[in-house]
Amino acid sequence: MDYFLRCITCRKEYKPKIDFYFCPTCGERFGTLEVLYDYNHIELNRDDFSKEKSIFQFEKLLPTRSHTQLDQFIGRTPLLKFKDFLGINEVLIKYDGTNFSASYKDRASIIAINKALEEKKDTIFCASTGNAATSLAMLSASTPLKTYIFVPNTIPIGKRLQLEVSGAEILPVDDNYDVAFDLSMTIGLNKGWYLRNSAINPYLLEGKKTGAFEIIVQNDYQPIDYVIVSVGDGTVISSIYKGFYEFKKVGLINYMPKIIGIQSENLDAVKRTFEKGKPYRPVDLTGETIADSIAVGKPRDVIKACHYVEASKGYFISASDKEIKEAIIALGNKTGIFAEPAGAITYAGLKQLVKKGKIKKEDSVCILVTGNGLKDPDVLKGAVKNEFLSESEVRRRLNEN
Amino acid sequence: MDYFLRCITCRKEYKPKIDFYFCPTCGERFGTLEVLYDYNHIELNRDDFSKEKSIFQFEKLLPTRSHTQLDQFIGRTPLLKFKDFLGINEVLIKYDGTNFSASYKDRASIIAINKALEEKKDTIFCASTGNAATSLAMLSASTPLKTYIFVPNTIPIGKRLQLEVSGAEILPVDDNYDVAFDLSMTIGLNKGWYLRNSAINPYLLEGKKTGAFEIIVQNDYQPIDYVIVSVGDGTVISSIYKGFYEFKKVGLINYMPKIIGIQSENLDAVKRTFEKGKPYRPVDLTGETIADSIAVGKPRDVIKACHYVEASKGYFISASDKEIKEAIIALGNKTGIFAEPAGAITYAGLKQLVKKGKIKKEDSVCILVTGNGLKDPDVLKGAVKNEFLSESEVRRRLNEN
Repeated sequence: MDYFLRCITCRKEYKPKIDFYFCPTCGERFGTLEVLYDYNHIELNRDDFSKEKSIFQFEKLLPTRSHTQLDQFIGRTPLLKFKDFLGINEVLIKYDGTNFSASYKDRASIIAINKALEEKKDTIFCASTGNAATSLAMLSASTPLKTYIFVPNTIPIGKRLQLEVSGAEILPVDDNYDVAFDLSMTIGLNKGWYLRNSAINPYLLEGKKTGAFEIIVQNDYQPIDYVIVSVGDGTVISSIYKGFYEFKKVGLINYMPKIIGIQSENLDAVKRTFEKGKPYRPVDLTGETIADSIAVGKPRDVIKACHYVEASKGYFISASDKEIKEAIIALGNKTGIFAEPAGAITYAGLKQLVKKGKIKKEDSVCILVTGNGLKDPDVLKGAVKNEFLSESEVRRRLNEN
Repeated sequence: MDYFLRCITCRKEYKPKIDFYFCPTCGERFGTLEVLYDYNHIELNRDDFSKEKSIFQFEKLLPTRSHTQLDQFIGRTPLLKFKDFLGINEVLIKYDGTNFSASYKDRASIIAINKALEEKKDTIFCASTGNAATSLAMLSASTPLKTYIFVPNTIPIGKRLQLEVSGAEILPVDDNYDVAFDLSMTIGLNKGWYLRNSAINPYLLEGKKTGAFEIIVQNDYQPIDYVIVSVGDGTVISSIYKGFYEFKKVGLINYMPKIIGIQSENLDAVKRTFEKGKPYRPVDLTGETIADSIAVGKPRDVIKACHYVEASKGYFISASDKEIKEAIIALGNKTGIFAEPAGAITYAGLKQLVKKGKIKKEDSVCILVTGNGLKDPDVLKGAVKNEFLSESEVRRRLNEN
């Protein structure tokens, strides 16, 4: 567990220390940090890993050890393989809806919780309305940590309910997300609480990259040409790149997939930033999308995401809310996976890229589905005919007399 | 995989055959069948099992082999341990909300699907409004099986939505559950479709009993004094007894916990049947409870449930809707587990039994939480104050200036 930190912009290196989350020279936005290990001295073999064990089997490439009983149940989510899928010979789907709190965010929250315990913190906090908040609240409930969740007044009642169930201390700020976020940073850091705000704390990405590790192991180390990932703040997509990069670096694989990010076409700040080229300058936006988990106008990890996607020779695309809704249903029909909007958008992306001929029949493709559709079933309301049939109508429909 | 069937009432033995689901002499209600193996010739060692593998690791005690890719991801759910919990030294919680379709029912559906494939069926069906239907629809979506789901007109729109996403053929019957159920039996059996109606098809219990196997393995074969299980039709509680019974029978453990069933006090048909004593005669009821997954007035597996609970020296209790709601919140607060009402009711039961002194500090207790609270968050509406605070109010609350 020997690692150091490096600024994504000025490349300055830092030794890890408590309460140190970003490069002081480049600031919160440009100065996001990479966690780098002594790769030349890490010995790993394919036999070290199983398809069933939790993310802590990768501890030589994690910034923390395991300290809670939940650790053994985080990650280890299904990788499913489908033949002749959307015109592709074989498509892999990594489905994180079976995580403890039903989203990919558990991979990050569990790292934050273990780090907080290692650093002897008594309190942890985040600002979020969504999966990150629920994940932190649910995973920390059984630990000694006190948990504060700053939420804006736009939070849907259902999500607030989930948070209340967890017993976390909810701080409902009567303003929008950006205000709640900034208030959380000011108060939380001042109080010395442990920070679980995605894309600021560099260790969260370290948890998220285990999704890539699992894809590699579950796919028996066979090459993958493309991975399609939905993008909000930019941390998950960065983590997927880093996961493949590190397994290549330590010699476990010798390929690197092209990483393709997909955003809502109403809120494609990372895509726009990427397409304007280097040096990357954040293009912030306002807008709305049904894919609430990636409804981010001011992405915090945009610089890292752009650099990593470029390094993988990947690119960004986008999809409409209509395509997302269709994707939820088509994905469910074909696979039985019930995805939240930000999960199903990758299916919409694959469909686009096949149609345009950018992904071909013989390419090996993996799409990420990051959250369970049970978190937000209401987006489909109106998609269902609420008709009922008499007994004789049922019989007639089935040609049964 | 050598097994035979035996009627729970007349004890007559049958060889398994296609389309044979209950004892023709005793009928659907009294003639439910047990699946029994050649226990004297089954050799099993503790080393054969891991804490991480799916239910198919227990295949020597299952009536089917694995034929689908989902098999490797069913079961393998968390067993969590809590010290000093409700006054008990150590409480175990088996949480099945992380299953593929987010409930315990996946353990049964996957067996039905594999049986149907082995029997070369092209179609599978069930009547249900709840977890069983969603589970079957989601798990069968990626198989070659055509799936029919008979639903009554009482089905909530949210659940219908989930079913539509799966691509199963929904047959919405304009009548209540009993009518939909009987119609499904008449049509489905006549057509020769594979039957996935809980408590009729004896193989479903075989999938469900793997929950007990996992508890034993995950608890390192240490004795457990009590297991508390919520009860609707009576199949899950029967399966828990059978799981412990079989592991004892083949010599893997030498204890048998007392199995305690808990029902809604508004719908406690199994409890009443049990308390009237032998010979057990079903007491059917009508009534309502927020715990929809156990809202069963005419339990189909009541005879087996009564015999098995008696054999374990267990008994039945009940809880009110108010206790269930409080249990959802208390359980979430203490453990981070978000349970559906029928899942949280076991927590309410434990609380009662501790208060009454029937379970003591030093007893080892396991409670089952069978479904994810995300399936039915609306039951908590009204439990949350929807207040918001100004920045200065937040600061004041945190003593921060």
